[in-house]
Amino acid sequence: MNEELINICKRSFDTKYIIEKLSCDVKNKALERVAEYLIDRSDYILAANKIDLDKAIEKGMNPGLVDRLTLTKERIKGIAEGILQVKELEDPVGELLDDYIADNGLKIKKVRVPMGVIGIIYESRPNVTADAFALTFKSGNAVILKGGSDAINSNKAITNTIREALKACEIPEDAIILIESTDRQVTAEFMKMKEYVDLLIPRGGAGLIRSVVENSTIPVIETGTGNCHIFVDETADLNKAVDIIINAKTQRVGVCNACESLVIHENIKDEFLPVLAKALREKNVEIRGDRATKEIIECIDATEEDFGTEYLSLIISVKTVANVDEAIEHINKYTTHHSESILTENEENKEKFLKGIDAACVYVNSSTRFTDGFEFGLGAEIGISTQKLHARGPMGLKELTSYKYLITGDYSVRG
Amino acid sequence: MNEELINICKRSFDTKYIIEKLSCDVKNKALERVAEYLIDRSDYILAANKIDLDKAIEKGMNPGLVDRLTLTKERIKGIAEGILQVKELEDPVGELLDDYIADNGLKIKKVRVPMGVIGIIYESRPNVTADAFALTFKSGNAVILKGGSDAINSNKAITNTIREALKACEIPEDAIILIESTDRQVTAEFMKMKEYVDLLIPRGGAGLIRSVVENSTIPVIETGTGNCHIFVDETADLNKAVDIIINAKTQRVGVCNACESLVIHENIKDEFLPVLAKALREKNVEIRGDRATKEIIECIDATEEDFGTEYLSLIISVKTVANVDEAIEHINKYTTHHSESILTENEENKEKFLKGIDAACVYVNSSTRFTDGFEFGLGAEIGISTQKLHARGPMGLKELTSYKYLITGDYSVRG
Repeated sequence: MNEELINICKRSFDTKYIIEKLSCDVKNKALERVAEYLIDRSDYILAANKIDLDKAIEKGMNPGLVDRLTLTKERIKGIAEGILQVKELEDPVGELLDDYIADNGLKIKKVRVPMGVIGIIYESRPNVTADAFALTFKSGNAVILKGGSDAINSNKAITNTIREALKACEIPEDAIILIESTDRQVTAEFMKMKEYVDLLIPRGGAGLIRSVVENSTIPVIETGTGNCHIFVDETADLNKAVDIIINAKTQRVGVCNACESLVIHENIKDEFLPVLAKALREKNVEIRGDRATKEIIECIDATEEDFGTEYLSLIISVKTVANVDEAIEHINKYTTHHSESILTENEENKEKFLKGIDAACVYVNSSTRFTDGFEFGLGAEIGISTQKLHARGPMGLKELTSYKYLITGDYSVRG
Repeated sequence: MNEELINICKRSFDTKYIIEKLSCDVKNKALERVAEYLIDRSDYILAANKIDLDKAIEKGMNPGLVDRLTLTKERIKGIAEGILQVKELEDPVGELLDDYIADNGLKIKKVRVPMGVIGIIYESRPNVTADAFALTFKSGNAVILKGGSDAINSNKAITNTIREALKACEIPEDAIILIESTDRQVTAEFMKMKEYVDLLIPRGGAGLIRSVVENSTIPVIETGTGNCHIFVDETADLNKAVDIIINAKTQRVGVCNACESLVIHENIKDEFLPVLAKALREKNVEIRGDRATKEIIECIDATEEDFGTEYLSLIISVKTVANVDEAIEHINKYTTHHSESILTENEENKEKFLKGIDAACVYVNSSTRFTDGFEFGLGAEIGISTQKLHARGPMGLKELTSYKYLITGDYSVRG
């Protein structure tokens, strides 16, 4: 076992007992200070970011990824504003969830408490470093971050800046610790640090998430994979359906709540598919359809694999079905349990779809793009959970907490 | 991969979509029928149990374990009564957890839904087969059971009886499936069936639980290990403190909420320890103490290992401390996050202890033995969670559910 890693985990473990007791006021002042420091130290952070960018360009990283890695004064200002938004959110710690006297006479309170130590493993977006700190800190947790090696210098600079700000507030700097090693073995060992870490959240591509789920002994929240469907029922307003599909597919490609697959009622396929295909082609979206679809519009064959693929690019698959039940069956077969939508005017089918679809967010007459902590009014988000344990869908501050029972007796013994 | 195991998981997966939609009334009638059938088929179940018992005795199983394996007409009646108690509990499925209109105009409802497929891996108590079915079924889930090989014939007979009762109610029998293979490799493969199983709950000894936590790719709820402490502060009523310790240690040995370790304020050690030691010895409890304890009473040396041990037998360790802060530090170091208690009249110390202890259930002036779903008023329990993700402490029907968001728009697109 890596000595330095164990040391990091122990420091975080010890610090959690201090962070969990900080008052809301103290945490808010610290978040303000962190936002200030990030802006004040922009030049230092940008210089570190430049090292990462030079390396990335030298090794031929694709422009999309380079853009995600890039910080600017403006983007740092955006990160600082994000931290101030988290500051404004209600502190979930201490919320009284239940309060009663049991039949045995014990006074029982159920109170919201922080998770403790949260580990976050993420890929190359350095803004996650600051966002994740703000959310975990405001909810009373200590955080251990393991970022991607491509962003290591940027992540170090941001972490150092946050730690300086905490120090200035007389809060233990170990409220945030970055694992600086870029050795994959260290990441693998980190996932086994169950003794010290209460929760592990992977943020990144499907490969990273799968690796964490398969190897972690720490409880994990699986986030982000979204093979999202839209089902166009025979009673849908077809013009509006085109708008929704274009929005869900193209408003932002490459995000987890983008639509990847369409399910079309066969009674409207002749009328709808040509109009839809024209609109999608104008946006350069490639269509991969089943046999019935191919009989109506020109498109590539959709394979089984297509129906199971989160493209994250300008491709969409199309499946035709005879009714809502078939649509539900198809979607439940290929869903990643993220976001699924029905477009319909039929009340019975709405109900069937809402009840029958096994996903975090089930929509009626809406784009899937709304699955987001801000859009849902949570004020912020650490990710979208696609599992059922603990939290489902957008995760805000409350989802970064647990609870405990506080029980008061009168020298009570069990009979 | 074991074909039969995959087949079991697929059948359960398909069945969950039916079970999750059953009305409360249909589920209640089925539970009544199951209770009836268990009593009607007592002879069949007892004959199967006899085979398990004969094997157990032949291989020299210890009497305590044989007792746990043993069924009688009376015990089967108790199991049936337990099922009828679960029937009386409120159905958690469909509960509206939130209902609001977001700033973007979307109508958002957050609704409680079943987990889906729950896997339970347990050791040789055949009553768990029926209990686990009742709880998972009432909360709208399909269950896959993997019991211990010692109880395989009893478990088969109970499962068959439940399946017959379900069939008589025209409910898919696959709401409960027992993995009949006693091959350990099959258990190991079951823990990897993430594609089909939503939640895995191990019930049994520390070894079983560790193995599941380390090997499962399915989200797990860790249950049951309880290295529970009682801290006797200097202001405690010492006579009552003796009663509580005797209750917590000896009322039922071998259960997870029994007290395993005492922490004693040094200012009362001279007065308290001799009285306590006498009472413990009368109950045949062996004491293992730190140096200060040994100076006052005759006892065995407590090692580091002792402080970390859940004895589940008539042994107790004793540690002396200078104040409540030291007590909290000691307990947080050795806690299994189950149940911890302070005995005190000092309000400040109560608060410190309640806030500072990192456990599911933190008690003031009470035995730790109350940590139990029935005692907490949950009406039943599938286990005591010692992790922070999803559920903490006693888990009832609600803790076997998740939620989903149902969102209604008006052909809404994201801007």
